[in-house]
Amino acid sequence: MTEAKPDNYVTTDNVRPTAVVLISGGLDSATTLAIARKEGFACHGLTFDYHQRHRIEIKAAKRVAQQLGVSSHQFVEINLRMFGGSALTDRIEVPKDRDASQMSREIPVTYVPARNTIFFSYALGLSEVIGASNIFIGVNAVDYSGYPDCRPEYIQAFEKMANLATKVGVEGQRLTIHAPLIDMTKTEIIRHGLEMGVDYSLTHSCYDPTRDGNSCGRCDACLLRIRAFESLGMRDPVLPH
Amino acid sequence: MTEAKPDNYVTTDNVRPTAVVLISGGLDSATTLAIARKEGFACHGLTFDYHQRHRIEIKAAKRVAQQLGVSSHQFVEINLRMFGGSALTDRIEVPKDRDASQMSREIPVTYVPARNTIFFSYALGLSEVIGASNIFIGVNAVDYSGYPDCRPEYIQAFEKMANLATKVGVEGQRLTIHAPLIDMTKTEIIRHGLEMGVDYSLTHSCYDPTRDGNSCGRCDACLLRIRAFESLGMRDPVLPH
Repeated sequence: MTEAKPDNYVTTDNVRPTAVVLISGGLDSATTLAIARKEGFACHGLTFDYHQRHRIEIKAAKRVAQQLGVSSHQFVEINLRMFGGSALTDRIEVPKDRDASQMSREIPVTYVPARNTIFFSYALGLSEVIGASNIFIGVNAVDYSGYPDCRPEYIQAFEKMANLATKVGVEGQRLTIHAPLIDMTKTEIIRHGLEMGVDYSLTHSCYDPTRDGNSCGRCDACLLRIRAFESLGMRDPVLPH
Repeated sequence: MTEAKPDNYVTTDNVRPTAVVLISGGLDSATTLAIARKEGFACHGLTFDYHQRHRIEIKAAKRVAQQLGVSSHQFVEINLRMFGGSALTDRIEVPKDRDASQMSREIPVTYVPARNTIFFSYALGLSEVIGASNIFIGVNAVDYSGYPDCRPEYIQAFEKMANLATKVGVEGQRLTIHAPLIDMTKTEIIRHGLEMGVDYSLTHSCYDPTRDGNSCGRCDACLLRIRAFESLGMRDPVLPH
């Protein structure tokens, strides 16, 4: 992996198709990057520092990209905190100890307004500049905890819009949004990732980590992965001992 | 007008419908803001500092909002320069002295990859936080100089995506994107704006202003407005004497 500089966008690797991969540092995006790599894409990572409460995510994104290999890795600082309105960026309590039915019933306070749309828009700009026709994102609709921008119909609508928005679309080259995890359960995601050699101890998912970066083990994000590892007879490797 | 603070998003004005208005400081967005005001919307301005070469735009946006009146005005700093690829953000020459047929023939180097999509995405986030169901943007397809993200089919696709992306869309309230200038020529835009009292001397459109902020009078943006004012028997008020 090399740190991104505008000059290294043009890779000497002309054989493989090129993709922009959104890397959050979480379990889902790590698995997505592994899938894109396995499918033969030259991957350009894109990670956002959106002044989230759990900024330790960004370090995890670096580790994940390093393990799995990327052609470049771009870090974009954007300030969503000004919009407020979410427990991830604002002074709103992160809900704890919820069961699966509570998670799926409503849009949670950890929802960040228009976050995926903003992330996708930057990925669209980057894909256009580097000439990539593919964007990978690790959203999934099964364990999505009610986030509207993780649903398949949203992804399809974004892809359609993206192909009208850009030079690429106008000039006939088609941009494809890949959301390979969209129909998978968390258990299926982890099983698939382990088969591909993803080291989940490098990832970070917790919405409310301790000061020293440990996962809380009780927020929706922690509980989803803990339960999924348990269903595979394993212990989540990021849990403190 | 008050400078935006998160606290003043909740206006005491509960009678008028609320809109987010993208204000660039140019002629088109000034006219769009005037239209939104005339149609009775409480307008929340959103202006981007995207490290554009012509940053004098931002001062113009403040002046325009002040003249026409807004409920709040938010300034968002985003760095598109990292993507390069445009004469507005990169070290690429701004084309000069082109005629109308040259402007409409191809996507110009002043095109910024995914710019309108990124702007719209932030507007979507802001609209969700303040509870606005309307976004106004001053794009137009007639004099659009080949920008793909100024076409009606793009705007429609964004609106459709936006209604799938957000809480608002999921909960049944419909978000509408207004692009009132989309079918107007520059001459029609100016005529309409003058009728509504827009002071175009406050606006700034030039892609390549001089160090003291004067318009170059030769880039596409300058030429489009100069010719439009001429067709109304007027001199563009921003031209230096």
